[in-house]
Amino acid sequence: MDFSKLNGLIPAVVQDAHTHEVLMVGFMNEEALAHTRRTGLATFFSRTRNSLWTKGETSGNRLEVQRILTDCDDDTVLLQVTRLGDGNVCHTGARSCFFTELEGEST
Amino acid sequence: MDFSKLNGLIPAVVQDAHTHEVLMVGFMNEEALAHTRRTGLATFFSRTRNSLWTKGETSGNRLEVQRILTDCDDDTVLLQVTRLGDGNVCHTGARSCFFTELEGEST
Repeated sequence: MDFSKLNGLIPAVVQDAHTHEVLMVGFMNEEALAHTRRTGLATFFSRTRNSLWTKGETSGNRLEVQRILTDCDDDTVLLQVTRLGDGNVCHTGARSCFFTELEGEST
Repeated sequence: MDFSKLNGLIPAVVQDAHTHEVLMVGFMNEEALAHTRRTGLATFFSRTRNSLWTKGETSGNRLEVQRILTDCDDDTVLLQVTRLGDGNVCHTGARSCFFTELEGEST
């Protein structure tokens, strides 16, 4: 993997392996990816806390990794996961972090 | 949208609106997002060329945007698209950029 483009980080897209919903996007450094592969639980690098965090370590809503796919440039990963716990991935309690639609033309 | 976390960029995940495949991840600056919303065609910011690029502008394999969803932190977008042209999104000619599975435990 190429971690050089984004100061040691790569985006990690999380997709439900069963429903194919896109659930969240996190960032991984090399250690987070290695930890994810070793444990089978999605683990990211928190840019705000400057440390690794395993998704669901407090809520119990962990993400069990079924497959990891890399893109053609080797600088992004796609995690296909099974949701554990109550299955709500977002910290707001929603199933997915992507629940707001951008409407209209202005930003 | 919050463009401050990644030097003016946000990740943009592209998902087929019909099959729900994750096709690619690009980056957008504010201008790329505004251009995408105005034209309805997925447009990214190229970090290597330091300029906007509309996906498919040379290949014809443009991405017609059906919906744009933002995540709970307002720092990532999910584009749900219809594939135009021959429908192959990756520059390698593959349908999706995510065609390589990471096997085993080592990085």
